[in-house]
Amino acid sequence: MSGYEVRPIGVVRSALTDPATAPKQGPEGAPEAELLLDPAVLPALDGTAPGDRVIVLTWLDRARRDLLAVHPRDDPANPVRGVFSTRSADRPNPIGLHEVEVVAVDGPRVRVRPLEAVDGTPVLDLKPVL
Amino acid sequence: MSGYEVRPIGVVRSALTDPATAPKQGPEGAPEAELLLDPAVLPALDGTAPGDRVIVLTWLDRARRDLLAVHPRDDPANPVRGVFSTRSADRPNPIGLHEVEVVAVDGPRVRVRPLEAVDGTPVLDLKPVL
Repeated sequence: MSGYEVRPIGVVRSALTDPATAPKQGPEGAPEAELLLDPAVLPALDGTAPGDRVIVLTWLDRARRDLLAVHPRDDPANPVRGVFSTRSADRPNPIGLHEVEVVAVDGPRVRVRPLEAVDGTPVLDLKPVL
Repeated sequence: MSGYEVRPIGVVRSALTDPATAPKQGPEGAPEAELLLDPAVLPALDGTAPGDRVIVLTWLDRARRDLLAVHPRDDPANPVRGVFSTRSADRPNPIGLHEVEVVAVDGPRVRVRPLEAVDGTPVLDLKPVL
């Protein structure tokens, strides 16, 4: 099967800069952060408002795509298991899913919380929580 | 920003073949279906078992990537809104999220339900529901 190209629609702006020390999941103390979107996709934001619960999809560009099994939560005490039964960033297609609340929308800037993705992480999509 | 290549890890095998008549979401009557994975990623399945709730990520290869606003649920009676506040398949990066239950795992074949993706849809990832 051939591949497909994902094209970032924006980038995460966050006080978090080090994946090694960032929370592994949003509810584990992740901060509020900003999604800075490409002005070209602004029409796609129409209808997104503060208070909405959305799933942010990111491209975890620092992940290893060749790892198929890991110690969950990077803890050597956890037995190795296949990445499809973990939320490890390391996986064949390192797409991150982050459920957040929209705090504010100001043009191409979308403030959300909590977000564990580090500064500079490419953003691929926003979807409403069903 | 440059793009990234997603590489399918498998394909959906389903009785559903027509996106126009397929359910829009799994709980809307979607059938059981099979994920036929590439044998090369089998180690990533270690730890996935019947009864697990997982999120299947797909690449909606028939979607339009140039549409930024749509009538939700393809219903002209619904006012047009930005795709980021809809679950439309049409969006800049047409990645589908499908929450399913694992029914059976047999080598590279993973039976899941319910799945609204049509036959032939590329599969990108499986993640446990948190």
